[in-house]
Amino acid sequence: MRPVQAPCYNPPLFPMQVITMSQSDNPARQNSHTLWGGRFSEPTDEFVQRFTASVNFDQRMYNQDINGSLAHARMLEQAGILTNVECQAIIDGLESIRADIRDGKFSWSVALEDVHMNIESELTKRIGPTGKKLHTGRSRNDQVATDIRLFVRDAIDVLASELTRLQYALVDLAEREAATIMPGFTHLQTAQPITFGHHLMAWNEMLDRDYSRLLDCRKRLNVSPLGAAALAGTSFPIDRHFTAGQLGFDMPSRNSLDSVSDRDFAIELAACGSLLMTHLSRFSEELVLWTSTQFDFIDLPDRFCTGSSIMPQKKNPDVPELVRGKTGRVNGHLIALLTLMKSQPLAYNKDNQEDKEPLFDLLDTLLDCVKAYADMVPAITAKKENMYLAAKKGYATATDLADYLVKKDMPFRDAHEVVGKTVAYGLQQNKDLSELSLSELRQFSDSITEDVFEVLTLEGSVGARNHIGGTAPQQVLAAVANYRILLQQR
Amino acid sequence: MRPVQAPCYNPPLFPMQVITMSQSDNPARQNSHTLWGGRFSEPTDEFVQRFTASVNFDQRMYNQDINGSLAHARMLEQAGILTNVECQAIIDGLESIRADIRDGKFSWSVALEDVHMNIESELTKRIGPTGKKLHTGRSRNDQVATDIRLFVRDAIDVLASELTRLQYALVDLAEREAATIMPGFTHLQTAQPITFGHHLMAWNEMLDRDYSRLLDCRKRLNVSPLGAAALAGTSFPIDRHFTAGQLGFDMPSRNSLDSVSDRDFAIELAACGSLLMTHLSRFSEELVLWTSTQFDFIDLPDRFCTGSSIMPQKKNPDVPELVRGKTGRVNGHLIALLTLMKSQPLAYNKDNQEDKEPLFDLLDTLLDCVKAYADMVPAITAKKENMYLAAKKGYATATDLADYLVKKDMPFRDAHEVVGKTVAYGLQQNKDLSELSLSELRQFSDSITEDVFEVLTLEGSVGARNHIGGTAPQQVLAAVANYRILLQQR
Amino acid sequence: MRPVQAPCYNPPLFPMQVITMSQSDNPARQNSHTLWGGRFSEPTDEFVQRFTASVNFDQRMYNQDINGSLAHARMLEQAGILTNVECQAIIDGLESIRADIRDGKFSWSVALEDVHMNIESELTKRIGPTGKKLHTGRSRNDQVATDIRLFVRDAIDVLASELTRLQYALVDLAEREAATIMPGFTHLQTAQPITFGHHLMAWNEMLDRDYSRLLDCRKRLNVSPLGAAALAGTSFPIDRHFTAGQLGFDMPSRNSLDSVSDRDFAIELAACGSLLMTHLSRFSEELVLWTSTQFDFIDLPDRFCTGSSIMPQKKNPDVPELVRGKTGRVNGHLIALLTLMKSQPLAYNKDNQEDKEPLFDLLDTLLDCVKAYADMVPAITAKKENMYLAAKKGYATATDLADYLVKKDMPFRDAHEVVGKTVAYGLQQNKDLSELSLSELRQFSDSITEDVFEVLTLEGSVGARNHIGGTAPQQVLAAVANYRILLQQR
Amino acid sequence: MRPVQAPCYNPPLFPMQVITMSQSDNPARQNSHTLWGGRFSEPTDEFVQRFTASVNFDQRMYNQDINGSLAHARMLEQAGILTNVECQAIIDGLESIRADIRDGKFSWSVALEDVHMNIESELTKRIGPTGKKLHTGRSRNDQVATDIRLFVRDAIDVLASELTRLQYALVDLAEREAATIMPGFTHLQTAQPITFGHHLMAWNEMLDRDYSRLLDCRKRLNVSPLGAAALAGTSFPIDRHFTAGQLGFDMPSRNSLDSVSDRDFAIELAACGSLLMTHLSRFSEELVLWTSTQFDFIDLPDRFCTGSSIMPQKKNPDVPELVRGKTGRVNGHLIALLTLMKSQPLAYNKDNQEDKEPLFDLLDTLLDCVKAYADMVPAITAKKENMYLAAKKGYATATDLADYLVKKDMPFRDAHEVVGKTVAYGLQQNKDLSELSLSELRQFSDSITEDVFEVLTLEGSVGARNHIGGTAPQQVLAAVANYRILLQQR
Repeated sequence: MRPVQAPCYNPPLFPMQVITMSQSDNPARQNSHTLWGGRFSEPTDEFVQRFTASVNFDQRMYNQDINGSLAHARMLEQAGILTNVECQAIIDGLESIRADIRDGKFSWSVALEDVHMNIESELTKRIGPTGKKLHTGRSRNDQVATDIRLFVRDAIDVLASELTRLQYALVDLAEREAATIMPGFTHLQTAQPITFGHHLMAWNEMLDRDYSRLLDCRKRLNVSPLGAAALAGTSFPIDRHFTAGQLGFDMPSRNSLDSVSDRDFAIELAACGSLLMTHLSRFSEELVLWTSTQFDFIDLPDRFCTGSSIMPQKKNPDVPELVRGKTGRVNGHLIALLTLMKSQPLAYNKDNQEDKEPLFDLLDTLLDCVKAYADMVPAITAKKENMYLAAKKGYATATDLADYLVKKDMPFRDAHEVVGKTVAYGLQQNKDLSELSLSELRQFSDSITEDVFEVLTLEGSVGARNHIGGTAPQQVLAAVANYRILLQQR
Repeated sequence: MRPVQAPCYNPPLFPMQVITMSQSDNPARQNSHTLWGGRFSEPTDEFVQRFTASVNFDQRMYNQDINGSLAHARMLEQAGILTNVECQAIIDGLESIRADIRDGKFSWSVALEDVHMNIESELTKRIGPTGKKLHTGRSRNDQVATDIRLFVRDAIDVLASELTRLQYALVDLAEREAATIMPGFTHLQTAQPITFGHHLMAWNEMLDRDYSRLLDCRKRLNVSPLGAAALAGTSFPIDRHFTAGQLGFDMPSRNSLDSVSDRDFAIELAACGSLLMTHLSRFSEELVLWTSTQFDFIDLPDRFCTGSSIMPQKKNPDVPELVRGKTGRVNGHLIALLTLMKSQPLAYNKDNQEDKEPLFDLLDTLLDCVKAYADMVPAITAKKENMYLAAKKGYATATDLADYLVKKDMPFRDAHEVVGKTVAYGLQQNKDLSELSLSELRQFSDSITEDVFEVLTLEGSVGARNHIGGTAPQQVLAAVANYRILLQQR
Repeated sequence: MRPVQAPCYNPPLFPMQVITMSQSDNPARQNSHTLWGGRFSEPTDEFVQRFTASVNFDQRMYNQDINGSLAHARMLEQAGILTNVECQAIIDGLESIRADIRDGKFSWSVALEDVHMNIESELTKRIGPTGKKLHTGRSRNDQVATDIRLFVRDAIDVLASELTRLQYALVDLAEREAATIMPGFTHLQTAQPITFGHHLMAWNEMLDRDYSRLLDCRKRLNVSPLGAAALAGTSFPIDRHFTAGQLGFDMPSRNSLDSVSDRDFAIELAACGSLLMTHLSRFSEELVLWTSTQFDFIDLPDRFCTGSSIMPQKKNPDVPELVRGKTGRVNGHLIALLTLMKSQPLAYNKDNQEDKEPLFDLLDTLLDCVKAYADMVPAITAKKENMYLAAKKGYATATDLADYLVKKDMPFRDAHEVVGKTVAYGLQQNKDLSELSLSELRQFSDSITEDVFEVLTLEGSVGARNHIGGTAPQQVLAAVANYRILLQQR
Repeated sequence: MRPVQAPCYNPPLFPMQVITMSQSDNPARQNSHTLWGGRFSEPTDEFVQRFTASVNFDQRMYNQDINGSLAHARMLEQAGILTNVECQAIIDGLESIRADIRDGKFSWSVALEDVHMNIESELTKRIGPTGKKLHTGRSRNDQVATDIRLFVRDAIDVLASELTRLQYALVDLAEREAATIMPGFTHLQTAQPITFGHHLMAWNEMLDRDYSRLLDCRKRLNVSPLGAAALAGTSFPIDRHFTAGQLGFDMPSRNSLDSVSDRDFAIELAACGSLLMTHLSRFSEELVLWTSTQFDFIDLPDRFCTGSSIMPQKKNPDVPELVRGKTGRVNGHLIALLTLMKSQPLAYNKDNQEDKEPLFDLLDTLLDCVKAYADMVPAITAKKENMYLAAKKGYATATDLADYLVKKDMPFRDAHEVVGKTVAYGLQQNKDLSELSLSELRQFSDSITEDVFEVLTLEGSVGARNHIGGTAPQQVLAAVANYRILLQQR
């Protein structure tokens, strides 16, 4: 069954080049035994060491890990467990490590498993035995729970600010296009004329709910697991309110077992992200449609598009397409996290280590996509004439004719029937409703009089929908004004 | 490739028996043409009619549909579009229809597509042409959006109240078991002794977040789409604040295009549901483990278990197992809804009709599972002696010994190493730490003195973790007291 | 937070009306105790009974259950465990039950839990104590595994035959439209002219892979679990080859533990189904696009469309939209099944009962969707003139110009560059390539001579792609001929 | 709402360090314009360039890309499009590039977008204008489709071989443990005694189906898209059979539109992978259970476990836990790919670029997990005494007693009832069935005589299940022998 040639399946090119288990790791590896190896009779298998290590991805949380350690050390000092001198040595040591990591000078070791052990081990190397006291009264279980919450909180704050930028862009564009008429679609069939500004504000509504969900998620995640230790708390006289305060948490968590095994915030964030991407996928779908030759409603500037290696005439809306495609990635991460947590008994299990990679990729993806849209939206150009001509096709004002008849006292269902027949006649004659003569129209109802033609104009149609949430230009401007205030208040 | 015998793939037995396209449907079917058939030249294909109809499942929203129509009719009266007499006729007609549906006397028709058309058509049959005026200024697009939001809101309220009942059950049980000692696990390996009450309160924490997420979801869904009409609003002088108020909504929605195409609330609810089920799956996993012969920590009463058709000795924890299994179903519905909405252009598309079945099944599942647990939790019996004996195994107080050494001034990392070696010795001697003699212990550190044995008891270990969130009985009782207040305030 | 009005969350209207726990159930309920109640001290809780029962949905497998029992009874007779008379009584009893179920005369009971117990219990009622011997040497665990495999196999056979019908429809249409020219798109931008027949055959390719996957899935599922008993086999001298043969299975399964806990075939089928629906969603997306006013490439007959309750002019492509939407449902069932099986220890667990509802709904959905398409495809009408005009726009023959230059010895990358500039000029002049004069063309390369214009025609472009898999009409007809043979051979 | 401190959300540390848009990129960037920039009026936005580039991950396919180009070049020579000299120059150039990449000396550029353009551009740099001819008659659309199929095929071959290694390990262990008795569980309750070898062979069955599915997937993917060009084929006289043969493909694909937009093989592989991981998750769940203090059925060697940073006594089964957790990741990638392809119109869209990262991570994960298990399984040690003692608990031979009574002519249902009562009595007396005296047993049926005690032994129970698929040691050895042949034949 197999080709003669040996399969050439390449591992990823770079990650393994960065952190290898070189000879310089040997001391580190023995060192790892001083971390938990007391009861072990043989060293970890080398492949297993790489397979179970997380430092390749969790090193990204080094800032949060150091901040958490700083708060913990200060608390230990307050509690009399560390002396002032010891605490200061730890703080200085951690800050020097932070600087080295930031500058790319820190040497990570897979043998030391994770970001926590890499930093703690280096700390002891730098400041001597005092470094060994830092882990008093905590465990990696509450430590990683703290780090990841801090990291996600930071990411939410950046994302929220990019979302706000995107909403501003939409609101600005909606204001400019408040009176631009285009066809509104249902079932991708022309339904009724709407304003482009109104359509833009629909996207803004979706993003506004996303923003609100993000903040709710942040509220629930912002409790401090530090002090939960391995699973049951600690016998040291710790002050959990102190560390919570130091780290900007609203309060300490209420149950230590839950604290070390809870990943709700990751799943909730992934769910928020899936909805956000769903919205961007809908937005993208429309941009792709509208830049097609068939619709030709808008123009995206060249700098957001790419070309083809074979077809010289192509200008492809890559950014919307790619964002649409990335929806799958985020939905996938949501499922990854839900599947991960399904049926796990309390408290911490190694499975939980699998939360980080989907979470990080999810956050990177959300930030990139929102940024791309926040950059691109101001550059969208409406091709107003094309939009207007399209709105004139497809009997977009049929509902207006029905409403007109109702206002002349015909029950709605009967009016609907009359207009249906009128449209059928128009299709046969290849004429839009506004192109039919009064006598042609009166074939179907003699309630129709000369004043009908106002109703059948596009401007009349959109202008008439002048209530809250309606498509009238006046309503679009009111919504814009309202959002300017709401966005300002964030 | 196929067996000789013809395949016997049966359709579902009952749904099609309930609503068929019998002869009595023929008038209805022609009637359907008066609903939207004006421009059509041939009737809908019969299979297509069944395939596209939603009445088989959306009839469940009849109460919400009628309430929505009542609010709309009253508003039309206020706006002068209906007379008082017409409005009253509509109200009476709708209430008589509601009574008939409730009593199982209403005859549903697939030809009339959905719950909306079935009811409206019957209304006209009962009260004459006035019935045809009800649909003035609205569309099925905003009507169904209103119905489904009302339905989900009602379901959330029922679910929230069942969740509260379950939380009370946990809090009560935790109070009774505040001082019951059991092994705490990480990696399913004995980690440290904990109290059963503490473990129960960990589950309560998860459910408390679920409750909070449900309310946030309810807050976002509680805006009224009524008045969005097909997609752009209507040219009739409607009062959207009036209908919103009538239906208990916080306010009218802000954008009509968004209103008819938004299904965020369904997805957000499904995400809340997936998390809730994830928690119940973890809860279930532990109940299943704990009722096994190997753990034997608890007893579930016979009425929550079932037996085997072949093995006469079996007593199976069916309820937890089934709840655990139903997690998949809810995760599945979440993906169904996310996939459904991906890349849909605005505004309403027929795809959206697919939101209801997953949503209904999701709600039924959540309600059943939470109800089953709220019934079962008070009947869980702890086998305290088994729990205690299990906690004595597995060197559960090793951390306490390390902490003891730290308090005698050994750096934590060194203490960890010392205890690791002590455990290795204990394993070899087949003795627990508390069974080692003082001289055996002092082999590893001469900091160990007679007072070590207090620290190595289970009671000493749990009692020492006496800070917020810790496992000490005192902390469990404090958490119980705190929750009694929080639950009361709901 | 809650509205004054009590929430009115209705349970599903009909299922519970079909099978209730009426008084007539009381005997049945006591009866259920004779099934496995020997060791139990209290009856099952009534809600729990409903919650854990499966008869509401598994009754659908009654034919398969009876067939399985017939095979088992005949085997028991052969093995001397049943006498010939007993075996015949069982056969007659089961056939009379089958007839009653088919005719809607059978009374199902929730207290009897599932289809198996309902039928077995009724059998004993009808033929006396001999009925109690039927379950010798088997368990519900292998019984349900057998039933569900038979049911799925039957469904696959029906589905495979509908798929074939749909493929024939595509092949027929492709033959008719082999030379119809339309624009081919990448990134939804006009790329190159293609033939409509070629496009239709692309859909056929996807479905052909689906068919092949279905058969592979059938091959793997077609092994007989009967004889695995509860989990370990049985001490009776059963003949598993005999029952496998009777039921059309290829062979008995190889491991009893695996047999009762394996649900791979369900997941594999769901995965096949997800791919099939993905294909139909892509197909649907294009039908929706092509029936829009903007594309207007095809016509779907009225009988596959529906109208609007408010907009009298609408004709919506409901069938494609709904099929597209149902993709989510099937993806959801796949996730439901995967989540269900994750981390289940061997062998059977109650969780597994949750496999049936997603599986049944999945099969119903697949069958409905493929049937809808097999009915609809022959009625698709190409609007050839619109397609042709669209292909003339968008510089669709730019690649042909580049290829022309390469054939005149320009390296491809240089030719690409030359044509890119020519298109830029055309855009500026608002002229297609074929509308530029020779001298305009020669501005960009003097390799261009009079013969270029042949290359720039649509017919020339599609005709030139005349290799296997290419878009030339001749290749489409060859593919059609090839498929006629392949489909015939099924 | 935000903390004073600025959020510190770090991007991933290394990937961006490897490929940056340095100054040396500037020429490359302008170079990119010669690839498709002819019609463009402004350069791509820098962030957009990074956002849309794929070279960071698709460079992993460099071997496949070069092999594809070699086959294409040779075909162009055969077709007279390249001279022999040109072809040789291209071959030499590509091989020198391959060597440089392998040795880490190749400088990748984001501005050149992807692996294809990076290599082609470098080729032209090395061999001059001849390099520009390589792309004649192909497009990146068929090129990437070819690369990814080759890459996945290679990965499948490696994975299939690791799966075989794991199956051998199971078969070997099953042979050693063919007669080792342990409790068999259903509902995690003791059901019947089984042999450990039988249990091991159940896992082997699952993996055997996985192997078979992988090969079916390979069969369907092994067709050559090369020659499909952008979407419609090419006007050059290419020979698709030649390139297919060169690359080890079974045949050229049948439809060019389908070829460039089909990602079925990726989804099918992900579905295979999800099932494989589901199996490993079940396997893992049991290993975790069995290494708990409560079960204590097996021992995993220290080198596959890790310890705790706080609890010195811990030895955690990290490898099984992590594998169990990685199930989520693979299910997630499946959903990512399905969501990605949902509703995409033909042919290629930029969304498709999102297929690679999930696919690569999926393959890496599968390979790592199967490798970890293939390494670990031979090192699993059964604690036979513990298994045996556990099997004696829980009335595991109750079914044997019922079967005994049936053989003495009692109908099965009545026997079931009798044994149920006997078990209830045993529970009350705290005695296993084999510990009851004959007179105690005869309380429940006087069919019971002295010979019953043979039946109630564990050895008698497992030995009696001696039919194909049964748990008897003889059957385990037969299955082992059978698999040795099957595995040999691969």
